[in-house]
Amino acid sequence: MKFQEKHSTNPITWEKYPLPSGNDISRIEVFLSKNKGKKVVVVQGLGFVGAVMSLICSNALTEEYAVIGVDLAVESSYWKIASINEGIFPIVASDPKINEFFEKSKEKGNFLATFDNYAYSVADIIIVDINLDVTKEADFLKKIIDYDVDLIPFKKGIEAIGNNCKEDVFILVETTVPPGTCSKIVYPTIKDCLAKRGLPENKFKLGHSYERVMPGPDYIDSIQNFYRVYSGIDEKSAIETESFLRTIISTEKYPLTRLDNTNSTEMAKVLENSYRAMNIAFIVEWSRFAEQAEVNLYEVVNAIKMRPTHSNMMYPGIGVGGYCLTKDPLLASWAKQNLFDSDSILKQSEESVQINDQMPLFAFKYLKETYKNSLSGKKVLLLGISYRSNVADTRYSPIEPFYDYLISEGAKIFLHDPYVDFWEEKSMPISSDLKRLLKEKIDILVFCTNHSDYINDSNLISLLMEKNQMFILDTVGVLNNAEINELKNYHIVKVIGRGDV
Amino acid sequence: MKFQEKHSTNPITWEKYPLPSGNDISRIEVFLSKNKGKKVVVVQGLGFVGAVMSLICSNALTEEYAVIGVDLAVESSYWKIASINEGIFPIVASDPKINEFFEKSKEKGNFLATFDNYAYSVADIIIVDINLDVTKEADFLKKIIDYDVDLIPFKKGIEAIGNNCKEDVFILVETTVPPGTCSKIVYPTIKDCLAKRGLPENKFKLGHSYERVMPGPDYIDSIQNFYRVYSGIDEKSAIETESFLRTIISTEKYPLTRLDNTNSTEMAKVLENSYRAMNIAFIVEWSRFAEQAEVNLYEVVNAIKMRPTHSNMMYPGIGVGGYCLTKDPLLASWAKQNLFDSDSILKQSEESVQINDQMPLFAFKYLKETYKNSLSGKKVLLLGISYRSNVADTRYSPIEPFYDYLISEGAKIFLHDPYVDFWEEKSMPISSDLKRLLKEKIDILVFCTNHSDYINDSNLISLLMEKNQMFILDTVGVLNNAEINELKNYHIVKVIGRGDV
Repeated sequence: MKFQEKHSTNPITWEKYPLPSGNDISRIEVFLSKNKGKKVVVVQGLGFVGAVMSLICSNALTEEYAVIGVDLAVESSYWKIASINEGIFPIVASDPKINEFFEKSKEKGNFLATFDNYAYSVADIIIVDINLDVTKEADFLKKIIDYDVDLIPFKKGIEAIGNNCKEDVFILVETTVPPGTCSKIVYPTIKDCLAKRGLPENKFKLGHSYERVMPGPDYIDSIQNFYRVYSGIDEKSAIETESFLRTIISTEKYPLTRLDNTNSTEMAKVLENSYRAMNIAFIVEWSRFAEQAEVNLYEVVNAIKMRPTHSNMMYPGIGVGGYCLTKDPLLASWAKQNLFDSDSILKQSEESVQINDQMPLFAFKYLKETYKNSLSGKKVLLLGISYRSNVADTRYSPIEPFYDYLISEGAKIFLHDPYVDFWEEKSMPISSDLKRLLKEKIDILVFCTNHSDYINDSNLISLLMEKNQMFILDTVGVLNNAEINELKNYHIVKVIGRGDV
Repeated sequence: MKFQEKHSTNPITWEKYPLPSGNDISRIEVFLSKNKGKKVVVVQGLGFVGAVMSLICSNALTEEYAVIGVDLAVESSYWKIASINEGIFPIVASDPKINEFFEKSKEKGNFLATFDNYAYSVADIIIVDINLDVTKEADFLKKIIDYDVDLIPFKKGIEAIGNNCKEDVFILVETTVPPGTCSKIVYPTIKDCLAKRGLPENKFKLGHSYERVMPGPDYIDSIQNFYRVYSGIDEKSAIETESFLRTIISTEKYPLTRLDNTNSTEMAKVLENSYRAMNIAFIVEWSRFAEQAEVNLYEVVNAIKMRPTHSNMMYPGIGVGGYCLTKDPLLASWAKQNLFDSDSILKQSEESVQINDQMPLFAFKYLKETYKNSLSGKKVLLLGISYRSNVADTRYSPIEPFYDYLISEGAKIFLHDPYVDFWEEKSMPISSDLKRLLKEKIDILVFCTNHSDYINDSNLISLLMEKNQMFILDTVGVLNNAEINELKNYHIVKVIGRGDV
């Protein structure tokens, strides 16, 4: 293995790793010789899913696997490989099991990371955990003008497998894909590659079982102790998928669900995320109505959610973030048109994404209208950067456009998050020292994420009461009635989805 | 009391009652003298809610009330009054508690029905259970061209109370109303009436607590053993509402939820029904996608619903019926514009109604396209008329437009429902003898309601297998996989929301 002049930088530690060139065969061979007799699992992609999936496999419940994680030797990815091989897990998570599992993997010596496609040639099982992205073209108001599904990187990943794998390999796709992808893209691609290599085309197995990974305090459990849906491209593939999943998931407690075909499991994943996106979008226009009608929509939703038939109702908020809900409805609608030749889109699902993408803009407009003064030069403190409570996940966070709008008005912004040290998307350090930030003469304070740290911080309200008059905007229901009434004696308090009751 | 020449006819028994004229004061006075010392509860409206609410009050948990049910002496309503006073409850329900409660009421002699507004003058408590309707103007394709909320009958009902009630009466509105109605219409109307009568305007109490009545096997329990949300127009009204509800509802097991103001409880009701309407509409376009992609959407939804966060997801179907889901999103959108001067509608909620109203048309088109032959003269058997499983409720049933489309194509239709003896909206008797109906040479059989009677009838499949080839369309997921596969040996079987898997 040689190294190039280019580097891949760990975005959290800033450590720089020179990109390798050449091959990594000898390291893989040494690893295999130390793990003789074990089935080889190769995990393709070391992102939020693949990295943790590798840990799950190297600590499987009923089997001893030799696990090789593969990612690309490019600037954006190689640091993950280098970090794993140096003994530092590339994802910082609040789930203590992540470190426990990684320590056990190191002890057993059954987890290696590499950039070399040679890994596919030694694999008995290949798990596909690479991204399949949607590119959205939107205007400054976040109105989507166009979107597209970029299949090329995903196809390249599948070809890398087909060009190297054993003829009887078992491939398990976990990536969220447009319905139809396994049968119309993955299956023929692998067959083609095998045929070109002069190998039989009917021996490999192909399954689909989507992950429901939740980065956060239950990261490991969201894979190991959670329901799974699976399917196979044919009967032998379905059986193989089930046997494999039984080795890594607590299927006694969380029974597996088999569906008829890969279209079905692919649709299940994008449908479940579209359901959530749509239910968030649904509550948006009711938030506006509640604000007009002096209704506290949080209390109304709580009252309704007591009915089990209505327990999935969502609350008002500042927007939708994360990797899934912001794109999966579009993946589905794209598939309907492009993989099944339909002349109609999934209209409501597409509209959900549109509505949700514009939520941060509404929050900004609401701030601007109710604050009444110019925002230029005003000191604004944002509490929470992560798109979800109690996690350090800023991918597609709605706080990003909200931040951009404020900046464009000339506001001076201070950022706080108890979980996020560094805002990758903005290349910015984030403070976790709220007391120090509150020493600034803040004009506007906005609750952006409903972290338990804010909700349960009994000191926070008294800290805020000591400050000079501020404009406080709660976009995510952090404050309860009593707190709002208390704070109103000192500050102007507004809540998204809640009239002045 | 005198009688007119006009009659009011019980639509089930066909019994005719001459309409009364004059007053009913002496009967009311005799009733009161027999129920001395009891608080008088007057229930305004003896429909699906009011009739059963009267039973609940006359069998209250912790208080002895004298209950007077009031309805109008008009052709469409008077038969209910006459029937109650003859000792026959006007609603046929599968819940055995209905008859139990009515028998107890008769034994105690504490339930009277009348048409005379004099009742309001003797009431300590008045419960408003009259309708507030939406009129929809739609084309043959069920596309809504316009809709309106007709407040006039509701306002008349409130005026009847205001012109007769005691100055310190407690009025509890249970009707589903446009948010804002209690504060902007009911409250000022009662005040005006009292002022005109020279009575103090500040002594009466006004509460709002919406019902969640479910006609069917748990009719009584859907009032007595279920969660309630309430509010008052002021503090004393809220306290009065709570005390009253505690006398009729098992609040230990189903705690009451108080909201800030009447706008909030009014919004809660229409929001919970809009939520349901929207979630049904959401699954419509996914049904079409599933049919294209050879996906069994029932199985997919089952797989997803295992997650508690997704347990409210709905199944494919033939349409939405009943009194609430077909209008409540429109009530809300109307209120936003007309009672809160908003220039925007509740777009998604309105669209849900639009999509749901067109579901029967889709089912019909699907039948026409997949059946391929002309429907003219074909014998079509519809299994299920009720809009919901296991109940005899045909109000706004989606089977009605589906039936109309078939008739317009010249089909000959046979109807079956184990719960519905008579289809009021079509003035048609319904057979419950499936065996006899199956002796006809049926060309097309359609499952329209997923009654347990169909799902659990082990003989049904063998009965169907004995028939000559039919076209079987399951619009509501009555058939399971094994049954479909079995039936496919004899018939053509199609399922809405399920591709040919």
